[in-house]
Amino acid sequence: MRTGIATVCLSGTLKEKMQACAIAGFDGIEIFEQDLVTSPLSPEDIRKMAADLGLGLDLYQPFRDFDGVTPDLLKANLKRAEAKFKLMARLGMDTILVCSNVATATIDDDQLRAEQLALLAALAGDHGVKVAYEALAWGKHVNDYEHAYRLVEAVDHPNLGTCLDSFHILSRDWDTAPIEDINADKIFFVQVADAPKLSMDVLSWSRHYRVFPGEGQFELAKFMGHVVRAGYTGPVSLEVFNDVFRQSDVERTAVDAMRSLIWLEEQSAKWLAGTSAETAAAGTSEQKAAGRRRYPMELATLPKVNEPAGFNFAEVKADDTAQLEKLLGQLGFEFEGRHRTKDVQLWTMGQARVIINEQAALHTEPAIAALGFDVDSPVIASARAQQLKAPVVSRKVQADEEVFQGISAPDSTEIFLCQGSPDGTAAWTQEFGEGLEHPRAAQTAVIDHVNLAQPWQHFDEAVLFYTSALALEPQPFAEVPSPSGLVRSQVMQASNGAVRLVLNLAPVQQASAPKTYQEHIAFAVDDLVATARSARERGLEFLQIPANYYEDLDARFDLEPGFLATLKELNLLYDRDANGEFLHFYTATVGSVFFEMVERRGNYDGYGAPNAPVRHAVQYDSLHRA
Amino acid sequence: MRTGIATVCLSGTLKEKMQACAIAGFDGIEIFEQDLVTSPLSPEDIRKMAADLGLGLDLYQPFRDFDGVTPDLLKANLKRAEAKFKLMARLGMDTILVCSNVATATIDDDQLRAEQLALLAALAGDHGVKVAYEALAWGKHVNDYEHAYRLVEAVDHPNLGTCLDSFHILSRDWDTAPIEDINADKIFFVQVADAPKLSMDVLSWSRHYRVFPGEGQFELAKFMGHVVRAGYTGPVSLEVFNDVFRQSDVERTAVDAMRSLIWLEEQSAKWLAGTSAETAAAGTSEQKAAGRRRYPMELATLPKVNEPAGFNFAEVKADDTAQLEKLLGQLGFEFEGRHRTKDVQLWTMGQARVIINEQAALHTEPAIAALGFDVDSPVIASARAQQLKAPVVSRKVQADEEVFQGISAPDSTEIFLCQGSPDGTAAWTQEFGEGLEHPRAAQTAVIDHVNLAQPWQHFDEAVLFYTSALALEPQPFAEVPSPSGLVRSQVMQASNGAVRLVLNLAPVQQASAPKTYQEHIAFAVDDLVATARSARERGLEFLQIPANYYEDLDARFDLEPGFLATLKELNLLYDRDANGEFLHFYTATVGSVFFEMVERRGNYDGYGAPNAPVRHAVQYDSLHRA
Repeated sequence: MRTGIATVCLSGTLKEKMQACAIAGFDGIEIFEQDLVTSPLSPEDIRKMAADLGLGLDLYQPFRDFDGVTPDLLKANLKRAEAKFKLMARLGMDTILVCSNVATATIDDDQLRAEQLALLAALAGDHGVKVAYEALAWGKHVNDYEHAYRLVEAVDHPNLGTCLDSFHILSRDWDTAPIEDINADKIFFVQVADAPKLSMDVLSWSRHYRVFPGEGQFELAKFMGHVVRAGYTGPVSLEVFNDVFRQSDVERTAVDAMRSLIWLEEQSAKWLAGTSAETAAAGTSEQKAAGRRRYPMELATLPKVNEPAGFNFAEVKADDTAQLEKLLGQLGFEFEGRHRTKDVQLWTMGQARVIINEQAALHTEPAIAALGFDVDSPVIASARAQQLKAPVVSRKVQADEEVFQGISAPDSTEIFLCQGSPDGTAAWTQEFGEGLEHPRAAQTAVIDHVNLAQPWQHFDEAVLFYTSALALEPQPFAEVPSPSGLVRSQVMQASNGAVRLVLNLAPVQQASAPKTYQEHIAFAVDDLVATARSARERGLEFLQIPANYYEDLDARFDLEPGFLATLKELNLLYDRDANGEFLHFYTATVGSVFFEMVERRGNYDGYGAPNAPVRHAVQYDSLHRA
Repeated sequence: MRTGIATVCLSGTLKEKMQACAIAGFDGIEIFEQDLVTSPLSPEDIRKMAADLGLGLDLYQPFRDFDGVTPDLLKANLKRAEAKFKLMARLGMDTILVCSNVATATIDDDQLRAEQLALLAALAGDHGVKVAYEALAWGKHVNDYEHAYRLVEAVDHPNLGTCLDSFHILSRDWDTAPIEDINADKIFFVQVADAPKLSMDVLSWSRHYRVFPGEGQFELAKFMGHVVRAGYTGPVSLEVFNDVFRQSDVERTAVDAMRSLIWLEEQSAKWLAGTSAETAAAGTSEQKAAGRRRYPMELATLPKVNEPAGFNFAEVKADDTAQLEKLLGQLGFEFEGRHRTKDVQLWTMGQARVIINEQAALHTEPAIAALGFDVDSPVIASARAQQLKAPVVSRKVQADEEVFQGISAPDSTEIFLCQGSPDGTAAWTQEFGEGLEHPRAAQTAVIDHVNLAQPWQHFDEAVLFYTSALALEPQPFAEVPSPSGLVRSQVMQASNGAVRLVLNLAPVQQASAPKTYQEHIAFAVDDLVATARSARERGLEFLQIPANYYEDLDARFDLEPGFLATLKELNLLYDRDANGEFLHFYTATVGSVFFEMVERRGNYDGYGAPNAPVRHAVQYDSLHRA
């Protein structure tokens, strides 16, 4: 698959954009006219730079408001087009995008439109240019890709084809299956963009909220599958207008973009294999032959991973680790000893393993540093992640120690891909303390979920990262009110719930306000009340829940008075839904990290969302008093 | 008019919110339940604090999903309501908001709804509570205020009334005139919110994009006029869910909120006076009597101002002013001398006056510091601004010098209200140099517009500030692409175009990126080409416009070759619309300020918007190279 990206997706100057695209490994780019017009580089400079960078200049765009106009305007439009064709010759470009008319179309007549497009195609032919005509979702008269293609067919000129843009098609809910009936020679270009499903006018949606494939909710693998079946072999190019990407670091965004295409390529191949297998299983021999048919576009695949089976460990770091040690001890964790060669400690509670890293730089406040995930094969998972352009992180190991495959997540958390074991143990723990699995208290526990704060520039990138590299599934997002603004909360989880990651997009902080957003690790136990009582005996500082909360809880759930009193006494929070119950409590915060203990009763699958505002408010309040 | 505000409009804890509301001068507040539930303050503490702060606790809200439910659910709902009524007794509150059912309504039957509401009203009566029933715009069955009122009428219980919320009414385009037919005794509460006209689902619109009156596009004065005519005398309370306000400084936002109600009060009185006058002029004697009728709600008025007649001056400051002096000199400004007692210089070009303030603190980069506006009466305008809670700024003056009335704009620019004169001169210039109006070159010039960068937290506040204090009119906003993101651009102008202010909301800057956004002052001259030639002779450093721009300009406008060559030679930008032409150029930037020279031909009324991306790109590029 030939990969491409429109320069409008990225921040910076044309030169910066082109360099970033080359570094990220794109085959070609679309030149967005405004990037050219505002650039000090001459067309010849741009052509040379692209050649030096190994970047194809695959599409010049956009040429607007051409078709369905009055004769006078047509004359002006053809003159305008000729100027652009000449410019394209200097750039060494041969394909231009012409969008269906939005502003100046006064005549709604397919025959007239075809005549006008025929004139454009003839002029383009004289200049060796191919015109890719695209139906904008909000085109005045032409807003459906099948309509645009009918016009292309009617004109029947070698220099006129169509451009398929997933946003314009999927935002309008057009059926994508008929793409397969389009003559592939007439598909001059394919643009892909994903988007969250929003109920708003399609123009604003398109101009501000497009995201890269895998970061939204469109069925892009299916769209691409139809395109491949049509026999298209040209560039698959990202055209993503996004307010955040326009403000983000250009090289980061280009890598995020490239990752989305690599992932889309794999997903499209999967979709094709899935539907071909269905056809082959159920159909006639002719259909079975079709099911085995190979398509001209070659789709690269990636090393396969299944979703992780669990958390292997969580790692926190600090330059002074005393507070972390105290908190874990009070929660009931056991100190398992130090690593035999590194300044790290291991603390466990059942299968919940926490590493305290003492190697942090001076003045490092306690923070979450790394997460380990149990995968089938760390080497394969690491290969996949690297092919998805995840940055590799490495840690020094001695000859006889376990080598961890590590990658860096968009928020810089280190992600380690670990060998899981059926009994939930981890071989590397032998490198700690006396290397003995001594008997422990009956308390069993696992890491239930981890909550990470994401910088606003990298939130969408993080969703794609965990989806593509770790096979976690994004859940519908929630918004939680906090005293310093709404917190956007996106759960990424394994389908069996064994791994749950909560990505929180915190409000932009005021310079004058204390940092009110923190990260945490939640551990699940069998008996939260007992855990809380023991922790209290050990002197744990609980997050103090307001009395008003318990009154409201009672009004909402009509709880048994003794139970309500226990909740209140121990600062426990409570939630209930149709599937079960949820009890939890939080510790005080040290540095930017705190801990949560949870108990899931029945099949409760949430995170106590109605209680999140209480936590935010109490944490804000204690920071403001401090 | 009794003023109020819901705690959900503001950031911070309940205590911080209440204090900010009291400081801003609100009469009362609505307690949003979540703020209570998450607060460590007991209901009794809150009651006492409100009393101490002189704040009424006017409404408890929200109580959701009550009506149109199954008998089981009704029972649970009544129990839930009773808990809240008891809580309200401890708070000393007597009115609760009940929203029409969104989630649990299964029975769409007005008679059943009325029966259930009657039970609620009876229970409320037992506890001395008044229930204000409100139709949410997205209520499952009840989403129209007239429908909600019909139910209230049907129940006919002294403890059941309705709540009118401008958002729920105006977002659905319901006719507001029938408000006048509602029995005022049954209007238990009125909530006001403004909003920009957005085409999106009404729930998201409501939860994220509401703004304070005067910051959006709703016809709120008319809405309030109908409410006043209905005979309502209770609180008029702001309920504004806004993502930005939730993150902004609580005291600032409370003042912004209060300003919006003061302004709305005046606008409502004006609307009433206007429509009454119409009725009186055109109608029967009965209608004439109605036109003169006084309504029970007393609406305070403000000192009146007309829109400003022009810019009196602009002031820039720096600790080293050499670069500013050089730029102005090269542009053709004349140095008029120093002030007789202060370290400030006066530079003029025709009626364009620029003060260079040398009194800046060490290491102050050149920046725009103040703007003077010509108003009919500086004292009246200042009184108005102060009643609108604009912070006053003052400057030291000697006994015989002109006293400037100054206020501080939301972005901290100092705004001075100056005595205009019919011939465009300014008396205070006599305090400079030799106090002589010596003859000048024929060049005439005025300040055409000033472009100010607004912090994202204060953009809406700035719109209301200039609307209410200076009688400028917001124009439809534009979005300009720049290499570091989209720039939102909001023109505020006097209807005759004599004062034009452009408020720009720049993208949030990356810590790693150079500051790419600047402010500028634009001067209008009669002959831009001559001005540019003279400036070039004087060695002015023009912002360099890329050659690609002129090619595109030619393709778009088909310009006369000699004229195009002149534009290119002098780095001039060009725009044209149906009304006229626009020529302009920019200087290089010093500190955060640069200058623009413009020539308006015919009735061109814009700002060369198509050229703005070019300016942003070139400025970004030069910063990145520096």
